[in-house]
Amino acid sequence: MNLDDIYKPVQGDLEKVERSLEEIADSGFPLLAQLLTYTLKNGGKRIRPALTLLAGKFYAYDPALIVPMATAIELLHTATLVHDDIVDNSPVRRGKPTVRHTWGENRALLLGDYLFAKAGSLAADTGSLRVVKLFSQTLMTISGGELKQTGVTFALASARDYYFAWVSAKTACLFATATESGAILSQAPEDAIEAMRDYGHNLGIAFQIVDDVLDFVGDEDELGKPVGSDLREGTMTLPSILFAESYPEDNLIKSTVEKKNAESVALAVEKIRNSSVIDECLALAAEFCSRASQAVEKLPDSSARRSLLGLAAYITQRRK
Amino acid sequence: MNLDDIYKPVQGDLEKVERSLEEIADSGFPLLAQLLTYTLKNGGKRIRPALTLLAGKFYAYDPALIVPMATAIELLHTATLVHDDIVDNSPVRRGKPTVRHTWGENRALLLGDYLFAKAGSLAADTGSLRVVKLFSQTLMTISGGELKQTGVTFALASARDYYFAWVSAKTACLFATATESGAILSQAPEDAIEAMRDYGHNLGIAFQIVDDVLDFVGDEDELGKPVGSDLREGTMTLPSILFAESYPEDNLIKSTVEKKNAESVALAVEKIRNSSVIDECLALAAEFCSRASQAVEKLPDSSARRSLLGLAAYITQRRK
Repeated sequence: MNLDDIYKPVQGDLEKVERSLEEIADSGFPLLAQLLTYTLKNGGKRIRPALTLLAGKFYAYDPALIVPMATAIELLHTATLVHDDIVDNSPVRRGKPTVRHTWGENRALLLGDYLFAKAGSLAADTGSLRVVKLFSQTLMTISGGELKQTGVTFALASARDYYFAWVSAKTACLFATATESGAILSQAPEDAIEAMRDYGHNLGIAFQIVDDVLDFVGDEDELGKPVGSDLREGTMTLPSILFAESYPEDNLIKSTVEKKNAESVALAVEKIRNSSVIDECLALAAEFCSRASQAVEKLPDSSARRSLLGLAAYITQRRK
Repeated sequence: MNLDDIYKPVQGDLEKVERSLEEIADSGFPLLAQLLTYTLKNGGKRIRPALTLLAGKFYAYDPALIVPMATAIELLHTATLVHDDIVDNSPVRRGKPTVRHTWGENRALLLGDYLFAKAGSLAADTGSLRVVKLFSQTLMTISGGELKQTGVTFALASARDYYFAWVSAKTACLFATATESGAILSQAPEDAIEAMRDYGHNLGIAFQIVDDVLDFVGDEDELGKPVGSDLREGTMTLPSILFAESYPEDNLIKSTVEKKNAESVALAVEKIRNSSVIDECLALAAEFCSRASQAVEKLPDSSARRSLLGLAAYITQRRK
């Protein structure tokens, strides 16, 4: 299944999410509308809102509640990216200059705040306090996780644990909230809500592992950013952690994340590409996808379930 | 009435807010707890949460709802200050180095995000979607207002309008939400909610005008920051706008906000201090306080009403 096939059961409502994002982008005074348009009309894959819609399909699906929630999820995601690009000092995202790069840090900061607030307002439109609460806690987890990460220096012994805790907070938490909120809003029973959350969490970890692998082996044009960008920012992700674990005598990763010089980044990327760790990472990602599939297999068979299973299979094969 | 007298009808619950802030400050991993403690245990005046508590006193006062809301209001306020200090590049706030200054921009950014989220979570604890929605819209107004302000250059003809629009978004909106949410949560009738919002809005504008006056005539030790800091950041506030309006031939304000050099800031502060504009600003603040009082006089007499009237009288006399 490709993404179009996967999205088919919710295609109409995913277009509603897109139109809702466009309406938000066109609102406000000129500078705000310009910034919103730049960040929201970006042709992103919209995986997170699609997850909310698909997760809502198992019980009482109500587009009047689920579409605003899916939109809120995409806004929250966008807000965290805008703020992340400040924290990481990133010049480029998805092949375009970042807001920080083009409009400066202050505007990126305030735009992110605005997007958080708009996301919260849409979440409140669902009429579900449980979802609003979940939504707030997600942002606490994401920002708390990033904050924790700011204090971390190279320590190989604990690197893998740190990585999974960080990825859980940074990516898997929002995936889990995307699916859990869809389930809650469709009045799913508690065990189905739990299963959908479980699915989202595991899918999110797999998604992030693949993202981190693509930072080594991806095509720069498809990625919209240069390879090796994590190492260049001094961040160890799963490929470099597994490499350092496999070659404890080789000081390359440690010195690269500490010194961040271009030559050593290029060498590390080359070594990691040609090692077995890429396959090991993808095998780990596949394991999380398989846990995600197991969770969703508890739910009744339907086109939405087939899409969620298809998405779990797609994740490890994506190239961008 | 001094602040202690004003706060008397809600003193016990204001202490609960303080304890709730202390509990939040003590939570999380060490770095987070350190940052939260630094920003929340600061001995601030707590005017905004006091407003929520007082505004809740007219009808069905329920501390189980109003105390979390008052805490949420203070957290939202703190979050905006932490982000503001990034935007304004401020080294000092309330006599202490800012988070940005001590821990760097990235941590200040993420701490602010965390505080927004925690505030939203507490607002959801009230069980009122109306309040949650109001809360989100407040953050949209504040961040949107600040964003708009980033594009403004000196234009005397429209400066006063810009100032009042900016102050409405930056300060009065949160004051209005503080009182409105207290009224909503106490099941006040719509006209009373409207009156409380009106009170908060006008009080907030007066509060900000006095803040901007104190930046010229205040005592640096009491303020916890050097005088003239707005001009030094290139920001025109009411005193400098009224001065520029009064002396259209004098190019001092224009050149000061454009060049921001220390000598010209010191000269402008000196000229403004010795002009009549300080009294004109305070007269305008008093006018907004009087509108606030008129709004609250529509409500039944009570110790809470006397406190709100007392606060409106206190605002123009405060020295810090």
